[in-house]
This record gives sequence, C-alpha cells and structure tokens, in this order.
Amino acid sequence: MNYIGIDIGGMSAKAGIVDENGNILFKRFVETNSEITSDEFEALMAKLVLGLIGDAKLTLADIVGVGLGFPGSIYGEKGIVRYCCNLNLKKVPFADELKKLLGEKIEVKIGNDANLATLAETKFGAAKGAKNTILFTLGTGVGSGFVSDGKLVTGNLSAGAEGGHTVLRIGGVKCGCGRRGCFEAYASATALLRQTKESAEKNPQSLLAQMIVESGLNGKTVFDAAKAGDKTANAVVKKYIKYVGEGVTNFVNIFFPEVVIIGGGVSNQGDYLIKPLQKFVSSHLYGKQYNPKVKVVRAALGNDAGIIGAAALFM
Amino acid sequence: MNYIGIDIGGMSAKAGIVDENGNILFKRFVETNSEITSDEFEALMAKLVLGLIGDAKLTLADIVGVGLGFPGSIYGEKGIVRYCCNLNLKKVPFADELKKLLGEKIEVKIGNDANLATLAETKFGAAKGAKNTILFTLGTGVGSGFVSDGKLVTGNLSAGAEGGHTVLRIGGVKCGCGRRGCFEAYASATALLRQTKESAEKNPQSLLAQMIVESGLNGKTVFDAAKAGDKTANAVVKKYIKYVGEGVTNFVNIFFPEVVIIGGGVSNQGDYLIKPLQKFVSSHLYGKQYNPKVKVVRAALGNDAGIIGAAALFM
Repeated sequence: MNYIGIDIGGMSAKAGIVDENGNILFKRFVETNSEITSDEFEALMAKLVLGLIGDAKLTLADIVGVGLGFPGSIYGEKGIVRYCCNLNLKKVPFADELKKLLGEKIEVKIGNDANLATLAETKFGAAKGAKNTILFTLGTGVGSGFVSDGKLVTGNLSAGAEGGHTVLRIGGVKCGCGRRGCFEAYASATALLRQTKESAEKNPQSLLAQMIVESGLNGKTVFDAAKAGDKTANAVVKKYIKYVGEGVTNFVNIFFPEVVIIGGGVSNQGDYLIKPLQKFVSSHLYGKQYNPKVKVVRAALGNDAGIIGAAALFM
Repeated sequence: MNYIGIDIGGMSAKAGIVDENGNILFKRFVETNSEITSDEFEALMAKLVLGLIGDAKLTLADIVGVGLGFPGSIYGEKGIVRYCCNLNLKKVPFADELKKLLGEKIEVKIGNDANLATLAETKFGAAKGAKNTILFTLGTGVGSGFVSDGKLVTGNLSAGAEGGHTVLRIGGVKCGCGRRGCFEAYASATALLRQTKESAEKNPQSLLAQMIVESGLNGKTVFDAAKAGDKTANAVVKKYIKYVGEGVTNFVNIFFPEVVIIGGGVSNQGDYLIKPLQKFVSSHLYGKQYNPKVKVVRAALGNDAGIIGAAALFM
C-alpha cells in the first residue's frame, strides 16, 4: 500500500510516498511562505502530489490517501485549517479543496504537525508498540502530542494538545500565548538561549561567556561549555533539565505513558539530555513505589516524522 | 436493565441499584475502616451486594454487573486494587475475588473514584452529551478525571489521571506526593484553609480573623467573610480562584473539553466560585480568538456520582 504524507512548515513543504511499514519511498519538496494565498497554497500542494506520483511512476489510483500536517490549529475531523501562525491560512476547508483539485479521486486528511509526529513515533519510531505515549519537541516553541490507549488526544474541534501552554510557574516569564510561566517559556530552545544569555551576562569571566563572545550564541553553546567543564554552563544546563523534567513529569502523572519521546533541536544532545531527564522523571512521578515505570527516549524519526505521521492518518 | 454501583470511601461504602438512565432505584451503605483485611473487605462487599438485591426483591440474574469505585490506584483492566491510601488494600485482585464470592454468576469491574465520577457526570450529569470533559473535585485533595472523545484517559495500567499532582509553581508549597508546588497544594480545600489561616494571622483586625476566633475555621469561613464584604477574605478568595483557574486552564489547553466540571466541598459555593472561574478560563485559554468556547459548570450528581459512575462501567 502507498500513502502520501506532506509535512508543511513556514518555509517549505516536504512530501513523501510512504509504505505501510512507515518507509519513505520517494521524497519531494517545495518552498512556501506566509504571502501565498490559500488558493495558491492548495494549487502548490496539488502540484507537489502529482509531481511525487510522477517521480514514483504511479497514478492517483495507487495512493490510499494524501495526509498533510500543518504547524497550527487544525480541525481534523472537518479538514479545516483554522489558523496557522506562519502561513496565510485562516478557516480554510483545505482537505475538501485539495480533493477537488486532485479530481475527487483520492481521500485527503489533515492534522497538526506535532500530533502527527507523535503518531509516527508511536507507530514506527521511538515508541513502536506502546499504547500510551507523549511527545515534546523542544525547539523554537514546545510542541506536544498525546496518545491515550492508541488514540491521539485532540479535544473538541481538535483544539487541544497544547502542552507547551501549561503554566509551570504562576506569574513567571511571559509567554507568546499571553499567559505567564508556561512550560514553553522555560523548556523551549528559545528559553534555553535566554537562560544561557542571562547567565553569561552575570558571569562574564566564565568559559560560557567567552565562547559567546568568540563564536556567538546558539542552542549548542551552553552544552559545549558544560561538557568542557564550565561551572556556569553546567548550572544553566542543570536548571534547564529541571524545568523540562518538572513539565514532563506533570504530563506523565496525567497520561502515564509507557514512553515519553523528546524531539526538536535540543534533543540532538542525545543521552546528555535524556539520561538526567529519565532520572528526574523516574524519581518524581506519582506513586513511584507502586506505579509502572516510564521510559524517556529521544525521537527516532527525525525530520521524517512529519511526513510519516501525515501518511499514518490513513493507517 | 439494572446495574449495581458501589462508591468506596475511607469510612463507608455506598451502594446503589442503578437503571440505564443513571437513576438510583435502591441504596444501602456499610461502614468501612483502614483495619479491615482484604478478605474481610471482599466479604463485606458481597454482603452489601446481596443485601441490596434483597431490598429490591431481585436476584443476581437481574443485575448486569457490579462496579466498584476506590479512592486509590486501580488497575481497572485486570480488576486489581494496586494501592489505597485510606484502606488496607495492596495489590488485591479484588474483581476476581468478589466475583468468586458472588458465585461467578456476575461480572465485577473496578475503577478509580474520581474517574468514575467523571464518567457519571459525562453520561448523566453536568456534562451530559459532551464527548470531551474534565472534572476536578476540590476537597481534601484535588481529584481529577479526563474524558477524551468519549473515553476515560487512564494511562498505562490505569496509573494516570493524577491531575492534582502537576506542578503549578516550581519550588512552591510542599505536596503530599513529594513534589513541590502541585495544583493540589494550591487548589484543594485543605490548601484554601491554609491560605485563609495565613491571611487571617497577618490581618488580625479583619472580619475574617474575628470570625475564626468566634466560630472556628472551616472551608466556608473565608467565603462567608468575603460575602460580608471583608477585604482580607476577598483577597484570599480572589487569589484562590486564580490558582484554580490557572490549573484548570492548563488542562483545558491539553484536553480542550466542551465542559469543565467542578465538584468537591468547595463547589458548594456555586456561582460565587463558578462564575469568576468561567471568566478566568475563557480569558486565558489558548487561542481564544479562533478556538471553541469551554463551559465551566458545577458537578450535578453530588454524592451519587460515585455510585452512578461505578454502575456506568457496564454501560
């Protein structure tokens, strides 16, 4: 069986033909931007689908369905893109309109990108075989997805699963959503950059501060300085992992998954992040004396999770 | 159709024969305590079931099943009571053993009491007809239950749904679960008593402080003083509602339910609590410009929710 999955971002859309085992057989991508109208966007996606089918020397009849993941608020059941921060799409019945452009010959489904990545990692990736999983992407923001008893938790009109926007510190740092103290404001890569910068400014003699002066600041800087033995950097990393750990433990107590999946740019630190995070979660979760263990792992599908998850809408 | 539901607490077990519309036809109760062994407890429940059937002039054959709700960690799928704080039950295969005592003639299922109350309120009570609901009982602790797309979210081995144990203030007030700053430590009736006491001590001239000296302190005191116009009491109530509101909004952003149900002793304040809470949640939830509205309501089934929810395990 062949499926098409498309992972839409603010700057590009990556599409793939995916088989029933989650393997990507062919890939193609196009650039997108926030100026394109919804009509143009739909035409672009139709062209992308047809191009990909051509690459694979298939026809529409060979494809079970086309799934698309959007970075925004999606009403999956009705195929409506409600709102996307970085795209010019508002209340667009995207699934129906793309279906029309493709000649009504094929099913089209849409979903939120973090939810679809969770689906992909649960079916084919880091949490294969688990029935309850939660995923967090630690990037520009904190994306999240929750699978309970094999099904995505999306809420009324698929408006939920916004785990990044749960307050971890009442009255804390201002978050983009309007509240103060959200998980995202402490655990995103953006938050880590802020924490790193603040700490370097307070400790100008530290290796961390020197590294920033010499090579600039990015999401890796504080980890590199910590691995080189810098105390200031070590303290920043330790505190950051506590923030992530407190947030993740909250969701463990709610969903009690077999597996917690960590993705996004910060997860490139691998065991250096995952091991202390596992330790924090295991020692803080509710009823550790009598409750089952919870595994914390790094996402396994990387940038392909979005394509595979979008295709998995039909599996 | 007739069902039996039993709501087990630390001091009593209340049983009822429930019809398919959630009406309780007959009721009976027995006293329990933390000294009774698991064998004795099972015998007591068997007697309770048979007594109730006798009251109703029915036989076991007239009953679809017996459901029991426990205040603790329950592995529902396997019928095992994993752990109950206030009862002498640890890793007991309760469902199987009660079934044996009843002569194997009837199905027995068990669940967590807050989850079952959520089920009852969703099927027959304050959120009748909704597919996504969340419930919080503001009492000695904060109990919680979550229904996503018509199904209870319970997690691996039913260990989840511990919404009271999610940190709302990192490093905050110590919670019974071992963490600091949990929702329960700010939003339970116990927490409200602590907040009331602290504020009265700081403001000995307030009406609130005088009322405590004259009539003692209970969960109503601060509301009574606030309604009488006392500024100190008003500030305590306002802050408490903010705590509850921040916590509830966190869960709204995760589950995006149609309805939030508030139960427990504090909910007896009715609109005085529910109205400002609704206002807080509506103005703080994620994406309020484009997301659906969320209704906050008081639990409708009161003390019967546990019986009806336990019976609803078979519906």
